[in-house]
This record gives sequence, C-alpha cells and structure tokens, in this order.
Amino acid sequence: MKLSQLIQTLGITEFHLADDPDITGASPIEAPQPQTISYIEGSKFASHINSTTASALILPNDPTLQQQATDRQLAWLADPQPRKVFAQVIALFYQPFRLPIGIHPTAVIDPSVVLGQAVAIGAHVVIQAGVKIGNEVSIHPNVVIYPDTQIGDRTIIHANATIHERTQIGADCLIQSGAVIGAEGFGFVPTPEGWLKMEQSGQVLIEDQVEIGCNSTIDRPALGNTRIGHSTKIDNLVHIGHGCQIGAGCILAGQVGLAGAVQVGKRVIMAGQVGIVDHVKIGDNAIASAKAGVHSDVEAGAIVTGVPAIPHKLFVKATAVFNRLPEMYQSLRQIQKQMGVERK
Amino acid sequence: MKLSQLIQTLGITEFHLADDPDITGASPIEAPQPQTISYIEGSKFASHINSTTASALILPNDPTLQQQATDRQLAWLADPQPRKVFAQVIALFYQPFRLPIGIHPTAVIDPSVVLGQAVAIGAHVVIQAGVKIGNEVSIHPNVVIYPDTQIGDRTIIHANATIHERTQIGADCLIQSGAVIGAEGFGFVPTPEGWLKMEQSGQVLIEDQVEIGCNSTIDRPALGNTRIGHSTKIDNLVHIGHGCQIGAGCILAGQVGLAGAVQVGKRVIMAGQVGIVDHVKIGDNAIASAKAGVHSDVEAGAIVTGVPAIPHKLFVKATAVFNRLPEMYQSLRQIQKQMGVERK
Amino acid sequence: MKLSQLIQTLGITEFHLADDPDITGASPIEAPQPQTISYIEGSKFASHINSTTASALILPNDPTLQQQATDRQLAWLADPQPRKVFAQVIALFYQPFRLPIGIHPTAVIDPSVVLGQAVAIGAHVVIQAGVKIGNEVSIHPNVVIYPDTQIGDRTIIHANATIHERTQIGADCLIQSGAVIGAEGFGFVPTPEGWLKMEQSGQVLIEDQVEIGCNSTIDRPALGNTRIGHSTKIDNLVHIGHGCQIGAGCILAGQVGLAGAVQVGKRVIMAGQVGIVDHVKIGDNAIASAKAGVHSDVEAGAIVTGVPAIPHKLFVKATAVFNRLPEMYQSLRQIQKQMGVERK
Repeated sequence: MKLSQLIQTLGITEFHLADDPDITGASPIEAPQPQTISYIEGSKFASHINSTTASALILPNDPTLQQQATDRQLAWLADPQPRKVFAQVIALFYQPFRLPIGIHPTAVIDPSVVLGQAVAIGAHVVIQAGVKIGNEVSIHPNVVIYPDTQIGDRTIIHANATIHERTQIGADCLIQSGAVIGAEGFGFVPTPEGWLKMEQSGQVLIEDQVEIGCNSTIDRPALGNTRIGHSTKIDNLVHIGHGCQIGAGCILAGQVGLAGAVQVGKRVIMAGQVGIVDHVKIGDNAIASAKAGVHSDVEAGAIVTGVPAIPHKLFVKATAVFNRLPEMYQSLRQIQKQMGVERK
Repeated sequence: MKLSQLIQTLGITEFHLADDPDITGASPIEAPQPQTISYIEGSKFASHINSTTASALILPNDPTLQQQATDRQLAWLADPQPRKVFAQVIALFYQPFRLPIGIHPTAVIDPSVVLGQAVAIGAHVVIQAGVKIGNEVSIHPNVVIYPDTQIGDRTIIHANATIHERTQIGADCLIQSGAVIGAEGFGFVPTPEGWLKMEQSGQVLIEDQVEIGCNSTIDRPALGNTRIGHSTKIDNLVHIGHGCQIGAGCILAGQVGLAGAVQVGKRVIMAGQVGIVDHVKIGDNAIASAKAGVHSDVEAGAIVTGVPAIPHKLFVKATAVFNRLPEMYQSLRQIQKQMGVERK
Repeated sequence: MKLSQLIQTLGITEFHLADDPDITGASPIEAPQPQTISYIEGSKFASHINSTTASALILPNDPTLQQQATDRQLAWLADPQPRKVFAQVIALFYQPFRLPIGIHPTAVIDPSVVLGQAVAIGAHVVIQAGVKIGNEVSIHPNVVIYPDTQIGDRTIIHANATIHERTQIGADCLIQSGAVIGAEGFGFVPTPEGWLKMEQSGQVLIEDQVEIGCNSTIDRPALGNTRIGHSTKIDNLVHIGHGCQIGAGCILAGQVGLAGAVQVGKRVIMAGQVGIVDHVKIGDNAIASAKAGVHSDVEAGAIVTGVPAIPHKLFVKATAVFNRLPEMYQSLRQIQKQMGVERK
C-alpha cells in the first residue's frame, strides 16, 4: 500500500509524503524496519527520528518534530493522538485469526440451546441446556458453557474458558482463554461445627465491550449479581470476588484481586497486583498504584499507593524517609545521648 | 411457602409470625425485596429494620431488634446465628445445577477405571488408567484425570479442571473450574551446568470436604505428599507449593501463595494475596492479614500483618507513624540544627 | 538394586558400602525410610545422621559427616553436590507417566498440520491449521493449539493448556496444565471515546528447555515478540506481559507478574509474588526477593527487596527500624517537649 493510500484510509489531513513510500506494515520505534510506518509519541523520542530506518512516521502535532522528519526526507503524517493512529495502522495490516463460521461436529450442544446467526463453535465445545447465543458469536475449542447462560452478539470466547450457570455476557465482549466466569463465590459461615457453605444462587452480569483476561476468575454471589461495567478491560489472572460491582471503562491490570462486594466507580485504574478488601468503595477515576492494598474507601479522582494504601504523594514522601530510617535512628539515639535522655 | 412452614422446616423456636407472609426466596439486606426473607446480623444494621421491604427478617437473639421489627408489624424469626440460618434459607430456595447421572458418550474412560454408583461424567471428560471414582461423583465436561488417581464419594469436579497422576481426593470435596491438582512441583537443583530438574515423584492428598477454587494450583513434591486437611476451603487463583502440609478447617482467600514445604496448623486464616516463604510453620488459629508476607514461623493464635509480617497491633502502630515520617524527618533535622549537630 | 550398583550407575568414586544394602527408592531426611537412600546437604543436618532409618546417605565431601555415618555403620556415598546426586537417584527410581505414542481418535487435527515422528497426542486435543509439531512431542488431553504454531522436539504440553496463534516453542520444553501461551497482550489506547484496542499482531517465542507452570500466562505483543530465554523456569500462576524479553536460565517463582516490555537478563531470580513495572530492565544474576515491587532498573547482581524495591541490605536495616517507629515517635516528641519546640 502506498503511504498516500494509507493516509487517505485513515482520514489524516496533515502529512508530508516525501517519495510516497510503499508501506507493508508497522514497526515499533525501538525496532524500526524499512517499508514500515512507525510512531513517535512526543519530543522525548525525537532522537529516533534521526536514526530510524522506517519509511514513514506517525508524529504528534509538533512542528519541530515534523520539520526534523522533513529535513531527513522522511515521510510523515501527524495527528493529535499518534498512538491511536498507530493502533489503527496495526489493525489495517493485521488479519487476526477468526474461527470459521459453523458448528464443529464434535461440539456437544443441548437441543434447548438457542443459536444466533453466523455463529462459530469450535471442536469439543460443550453448551448446556437453556443457553442463548447471539449472532456472530465465536466460541473456541474446549470451552464449556453451563446452563441458562446468555452470550451477546459478536462476543468471542477463547479456548478452555468456562462460563458458569446463569451468567449473562453482553455484546462485543472478549473472554480470553482459561477464564472462569460465574463460578460459586467463596462464601462460608463460621459455625461451632466448622465452615457452613453459603450457596451462591446469584449470577454474573457482564456488560457490552468488556474484556476478561486469560485465567481470570469472576465469581457469582449468594444473592443478586456481580457486575462488570461497559467497556471495562480486565487483564490476566485477575480475581473478582462475589458481589463486586465494577463501573464502566475501568482498567484492571494483571493479578489484581477484589474481595467480595467491592464497589468500583467508572474509569477506575488498578495497576498490577492491587488488592481491595471486601465492601470497599472506589470513586470514579481513582487510581490504585501497583501492589496497593486498599483497606478503606477511596475518593473519586484519588491516587492511592502502599499497604494500607494512602495518598500517592504522601506515600512517595514517606517512602523516601523510610530509606533513611537507619540513619534517623542513629541521629535520634545520638541526640538522646547528648541530652542525657535515658534509652529505653 | 408460608413463613410458618419455613420456620418449622428450620426448627426455629423464637419467632413473630405477623400475618404469616408467603416467602418465595431470600434477599440481601441492602437490596430487600417483597415476599422474601432477609437477615440482620446485629444492632449495627438496626436502621434497615425501619426501611426494609422484605416480608420477614432473620434476627439475632436481641430483644431490642425484635421489638423494633414487631413494632413495624414485620414478621421475624430469631437465632443466635442469624447468618447461618440465612445460609440455610438460601439453600432451601436454591436448586443448584447438578450434572445428570450417567456417562456422556464422548467421555474417554480407560477400561481399567473403576467407577462407583450413580456417577455423572460430562462430555469430553478424559479419565486415564488406574483411576478409582467413588459413588455419586460428578465430573463436569472437559475435565482431565491423569492415571492412578482416586476421587472420593460425592466429590464434584468442575469443567476444565485437571487432576494429575496419583492424586487422592477425599469425599464431599469441590474442585472448581480450571483448578490443577497434583502437577509437578517447582524443583530445580542449581548446578554449574544450569538448573537440573528434580523429578516430582510424590502425590497430592486432599482430605474430605475440601474446596479448591477456580484456577488454583496445588503441586506434588519430589517425595512424600502435599496435604490439604479436612474441611479446608481454598479460594481462586491460590498456589500451594510442593510438600505443603495444611491442617483442617483453614481458609485461604484469593491469590494466596505458599512456597514449598510450608506447614500450616488447623483453622488458620490467610486473607487475600498473602505469601508464605518456604519451610515456614504457622500455628493453629493464626491469622495472616491481606497481603502479608510471612518469612518466619507464626505462633498459634497470632495475627500477623505486613512484609515481612509482624504482630498486627505493632504493624498498625508502626504504619500510623509511617504516614508521619516526612514530618518526623523535618522535626529531627530541626532539633539537630538547634543543637548544633552536624548533618550527615 | 544393591547400593554398589547404584553407586556404579551414578559414577560416584567416594563411598562407604557397609553391608551394601538393597535400595528401593529415595526418602527425604525428615521422613527417612528403611531400604531407601536419603541425603544430607551439610553439617547443619548432621544430627539426622544419628537418627535416620534410611539405609544409606548421600553426603557432601565432608570428612566429619562421613566419619559420623561410618561410625553408625551406615552406608554412604559422597559428592560435592549431594542435592544433585539426590535428584539423580529420584529420577532413577521414578517412572514418570508418559502419554503413549500415537494419536487419539478423538483429537481434531487440521489436515495442514505437520506432525513429527513418534508424537503422542491425547484425547480431545485440537490442533488448528498450519501448526508444526516436532518429533516425540507429547500433547496431553484437551489441549488447544491455535494456527501457525510451532512446537519443538520432545516438548510436553499438559492437559487443558492453550497455545495461541504464531507461538514458537522450542525443544525439550514443558508446558504445565492450564497454561496459556501467546494470547493477546493487554493493550488499549486511551481516547476521548474510551479504550481503543491495539491489535496484538506479534508472537511469543519460547526457547529450548523452558518450563512454564500451571495456569501461567504469557502474552504476545502488538508488534515483535515476547521472548523466554533458554532454560528459564517459570512457576505456577505467573503473568508475563506483552513484549517482555526474558534471558536464559532465569527462575520466576509462583505468582510473579511482569507488566509489558520488561527486559530481564540471564540467571535472574524472582521469588514469589514479585511484580515488575513496565519497561524496567533487570541485569544478569539479579535477585528480587519475595513480594518485591520493582519500579526502576536493577543492576546486574543486585538483590532488591520491598515496594518500591531497594537494595536488600538497606531494606533489612530500614525494616528493623520500622518496627521501632512507635517508640521513635515517642522519643522525638519527648525531646521536642524537653527542648521547648512547638508541636506541629
């Protein structure tokens, strides 16, 4: 594809064609390749413009960077969101594997299952009674779907995932391999005779455009539901306990864990290995830093860090002093000695 | 079901019938529904009595709460363990999905396998040579069972779980979807030529009434066994290393990790994301708080918190001061200045 | 097997046969059994020599320990690496389960798949188009392999694992049950309209002799590859983000998590539950202690601990003072009072 064609396809209006190179794909700025297009996120990466072997660059709306590229006789195109355009370019050149439409003869599908149009159901899939599958849904090999589940249009469920009874998954969702959605929550009542199981009669509700990572687990509650909001993206090996309510547009990175009944607002970001104690409420747009342990409610827009989590700025300051604790301890002892204070 | 019938079924002797409402299910106190029964754990939730739309309440043996409900003309029943009764009510109204008895024709079962009576074996299950399956066992679709394994009576194994060779699982156990039991422990000997694999010739023993969560992993050791004690309940994404010995009645919450050869007593509770270093011993009834990192032995009954874990009370005090470290640092510097002490 | 035969098989030159006992297996030093051989790693375990019921011991090259064993009329053999010899002995007596050679009739294999010689493919395995499988490869039941994947000679893939499109796995690798290799990395571009998915067109490359633990996940990147170096061993429930480059001979213990594009050198050790922030570089032979949270680059050979991770020795000193913070706080207040400093 000629760069000019690519620019037209993307609808970009600010560009420098140079010799209008052929573009066969995209390459990352740290590993550029000829005949590809790469991208520069900002002036921090300006030095790459002088060394890149890529044939074209996606630049921000930064005249200095653009001039620098033009001077090197590099073709470029510019956009306020260069990373977004880069994602669009990758998508243009990438043909993802799609399961072919049709039902593999080894799939075991209960006669009561309602199937939409143009579904793709792989080998050894098992779909139990009362399940409803939307249009253009893809269910990869060895997935198991328990009874009375609903799967929305165009949703993709990858291999070896398990969807438990009564789960409702919206449209355009992506359930990665090995994920387990809707299994029994971890509910036991302490009694003098030991742990009494509380039956988990609720269900998991997953709204549209949600992504659930590989081997992540989302449990159903004793009553009511566990809900994952529209467009929320969940990474691998994440655990969502029974009864959690997660708002729209959140990001939960790898190995995050939420105990039961956590309430999370919209557009909340949890970095890797964050843990949230049960019944905690997290406000809209809040951020929990990597490995934070959140024991109490977090206000909207707050950034929290540490175990137990405290405001990020305070954590940074306190941690800086933590590293000087041995020195502080010596200083304090010296002062006490000087003042004649008795050491405890 | 009339409330009076429900009370009779539960064997409750202290109650106020009011107009003996019809009860069609249970509802949580935060989301009460008409014609359901809800529960109040204690006086902390007393305000809900005035606002609930539930038709009946399970109360503790608290005359004040009972009078409050009677005054609102609400039906109620009372028990010293209201949460236990609530669990019993949920179980009464909930009909959990059970795999139908019988062997699905797509299951691949070695001729040497010994099957108990009334077993339910789902589609695409694979059971290798020498396995013994007890009576009324349920094995959900796509489970794989390696050779020479034993599964006790009434145990349920959910979809896509894997049980490795020589594992012994007791009666009335619940293995959730995607769990991997009895795989090779992580044993490598450092040598000048690199990591030498130590073969893991041992086995995993799981006693009766144990529950293992979704995608959790329990490894077998080089020699001897990894043992999970009677009635111990393990949540999702938990890792139990090779050779661990876990006592009876323990609770391990989500994403807990135990390195090799950890010895855990009875009724120990580990909150979410706790990690235990190899060869550590944890005494009976000890508690490790969420995210604790336990590096040394813990006495019976102790509560430990932090990384490395210390007694919980000390941790709470030290953490309170941690948040004041920037201020302390300034104070110390000021004192040093005032005293004419040279700054390091 | 007579001990003398065993010694000959192992090629050991330093030994004391005593009455040349029959050896039927190995036993751990804490649970010795007659007619077995056990091992003593060093003088720390000398007391076991006096009490063991094992018939023979593997000892280090330590004349005192050897004399102690001889005095008890115990047979022994000695080597500079007793644990290595112990591993060799276990391997001699252990016959691991191997999937029988052949292709199970229920496996679904695309006609375009190229199969090596003497492969073992279990029941309900699914292998998609364009996959190449080397010689003597074992693929256990219910494994799913996506298109255009390559699996090297003698590699073993355990039950319910999933290998995604374009993944290349080397020779002599071991992929444990439930692992997911090569799924889409977690890449989303924030835009005013929400999270835009960045297609993950890259692949995962796994070099020879790598081991990946149960339910671990290794993601592919948007472009280029995620690489796991020769002989690196990864434990259970580990998450490796898109684009990570891990060197040869590393050890990643259970529940370790690496965000995207982390660069790890050779022979790096990460203890349990370590987390590494994206784009961090870890030098050769570095060690991250259990639960460390690594936010910045780590030099070769360094040992780091804590969140954020700092040099291990500093962490140990600072932590010791952390436990005295309440006392320090009191001391500081007392000094301020004595000096007439106003409390803030």
